[in-house]
Amino acid sequence: MGATAAPAWMRRALQLAAAGPWPDPNPRVGCVVVAPDGTVVGEGFHHGAGTPHAEVEALREAGDAARGATAYVTLEPCSHTGRTGPCADALADAGVARVVFAQSDPNPDAAGGAERLHAAGVHVTGGVLADEAAALNERWARTVDLGRPLVTWKLATTLDGRSAAADGSSQWITGEAARADVHLLRATRDAVLVGTGTVLDDDPRLTVRMPDGALAPDQPLRAVMGLREVPSAARLHDAPGAVVHLETREPREALELLWRKGVRDVWLEGGPTLAGAFLRAGLVDDVYAYVAPALLGAGRAAVADLGIRSISDVRRLELVDVAVVGGDVRIHAVAAAGPVATAATVRHDADVTTTDLHAPAQP
Amino acid sequence: MGATAAPAWMRRALQLAAAGPWPDPNPRVGCVVVAPDGTVVGEGFHHGAGTPHAEVEALREAGDAARGATAYVTLEPCSHTGRTGPCADALADAGVARVVFAQSDPNPDAAGGAERLHAAGVHVTGGVLADEAAALNERWARTVDLGRPLVTWKLATTLDGRSAAADGSSQWITGEAARADVHLLRATRDAVLVGTGTVLDDDPRLTVRMPDGALAPDQPLRAVMGLREVPSAARLHDAPGAVVHLETREPREALELLWRKGVRDVWLEGGPTLAGAFLRAGLVDDVYAYVAPALLGAGRAAVADLGIRSISDVRRLELVDVAVVGGDVRIHAVAAAGPVATAATVRHDADVTTTDLHAPAQP
Repeated sequence: MGATAAPAWMRRALQLAAAGPWPDPNPRVGCVVVAPDGTVVGEGFHHGAGTPHAEVEALREAGDAARGATAYVTLEPCSHTGRTGPCADALADAGVARVVFAQSDPNPDAAGGAERLHAAGVHVTGGVLADEAAALNERWARTVDLGRPLVTWKLATTLDGRSAAADGSSQWITGEAARADVHLLRATRDAVLVGTGTVLDDDPRLTVRMPDGALAPDQPLRAVMGLREVPSAARLHDAPGAVVHLETREPREALELLWRKGVRDVWLEGGPTLAGAFLRAGLVDDVYAYVAPALLGAGRAAVADLGIRSISDVRRLELVDVAVVGGDVRIHAVAAAGPVATAATVRHDADVTTTDLHAPAQP
Repeated sequence: MGATAAPAWMRRALQLAAAGPWPDPNPRVGCVVVAPDGTVVGEGFHHGAGTPHAEVEALREAGDAARGATAYVTLEPCSHTGRTGPCADALADAGVARVVFAQSDPNPDAAGGAERLHAAGVHVTGGVLADEAAALNERWARTVDLGRPLVTWKLATTLDGRSAAADGSSQWITGEAARADVHLLRATRDAVLVGTGTVLDDDPRLTVRMPDGALAPDQPLRAVMGLREVPSAARLHDAPGAVVHLETREPREALELLWRKGVRDVWLEGGPTLAGAFLRAGLVDDVYAYVAPALLGAGRAAVADLGIRSISDVRRLELVDVAVVGGDVRIHAVAAAGPVATAATVRHDADVTTTDLHAPAQP
């Protein structure tokens, strides 16, 4: 064993890491502690912000058997004291002889763990299966880079780009299978965001239902942004889970408020106006377009004016995948390389308030 | 041989039939003449309107060996005298003992061949592999039913249904691969149709180019409809092949004029107005939508007002297939069951004139 077995143990650590949650403010991390004779004495993964780090979990399981062992960790052990003490210290204190990690910590506040371990006399090797580890936390790393949650805009449109008929009616442009698919994709995000206009016009539930119609056990935060009041009788209050009213019309502010609540991956189901505001601000990362093979010829456009006058300024996206969902087409595309909003451009405004309308069902 | 071998010989006849042309005013037909000892003595297929029928070709090859032989024909031999004499008579005169055919002739003018053969003392069996034979001529049979050419509308649009930016610029919404794909699909039709507006605005060539950039040897008819003059310097005159100006703004009339010219399968590349006119008249059978993963937010809609006010009147299509072409998405859909224009509703108008602007390169 030793160096030659490192990729195998790291693969196990990556498996463990993948059991962690996303979206979450923290990255997904796994840890395996292996005794000199090749016995696994401890395993752990990070269960999300507010819970112990993977190394702490694995060391707890290992107990005294950690002494002289090798710890395989998918991310460089942290050197800072957050909700828990530095993992680098915990590993050194437990008597671990060697630490093998995959990805270096991209978070400047947490980095420096390798150095700290080395100073404590622990043998340290980094970069083992680093690409696999980075891929596991790709969306998390993007949120750290951007300093804001990622935004996925979902739209449902006819072939000629209409999201409602001339009289405003829009139910249902896409079929039942597409609507069920939306529920499953909502479940992969930690907040569903709409504008007050959508709440007042369409009164959506914004919940995640499973294909059998039952409410999913965990519901993303249901967030409404805008300055109009959210009626207490609105259906988005009907299901378990948290509801929040972000009292701003400004996309950056709304994302900043959601970020402070720990939200990292937003599912945007706003109408053309709200979507247009996010697109104009360069704040849409993913687009899921459900295209119905149908024509309206008139009615509400899927997106409001973006200030684009000439084809040379067209907002190009990059195709990720295309799927047939029932009788409709789902197109997943991502923002092509271009101006991207960074943390530095997020405007803070002390006047903006957040109203918790509905406490989470589970703390 | 005999009855048990019939499907095998019919399969060969179907293979031969498939070598025939589509689109064409005539169906694709194949014929195999088999001597009593199982030797193939003649084969033929129909090369298109104005050329001998498959039976005549096969009998010519068989010569005296047709006497006492069995003829396998994919379509009931005709009983009428058109450009050629009735095939039923030709088979009987050649001394064929037995005729096995697949599909009964759906054309009432040509049907009756089986009866005529029977009266002449020939043993006749019909319906062998009839479904396969029908599938081979499915589009042809639809043109016979409808009494007009089929119409395929091609559009190129952004995800939000725009076919041009606010300033009218539209080159290029979709990528190079999509444009090359359009050329290959144009080649499967016998006419490309646009309005005079598109000629005046975009000056398209409307040719079929192969992926290597060379002009295809056979070019579909390039047809322009509308009352405005087609400039003699327009680029659609530049390539070999016929060009015609249909001096009408009425879709049914344009199709009637094309029908009389032998056109059976039209590729419609008009703008939103012309497409809207065809859609309102229920004269679009197939839709190929090239959807670019891009957003404009403003600009020309892919289709003009269709008179639809409410979502309940949305024009539903049925998805046939979805393909990724380069970085774009191609959606092929067909008109769902609904009101369909029939021959009886085609309006004839003696005032409508057709102007041949350009003689065909090959007669």
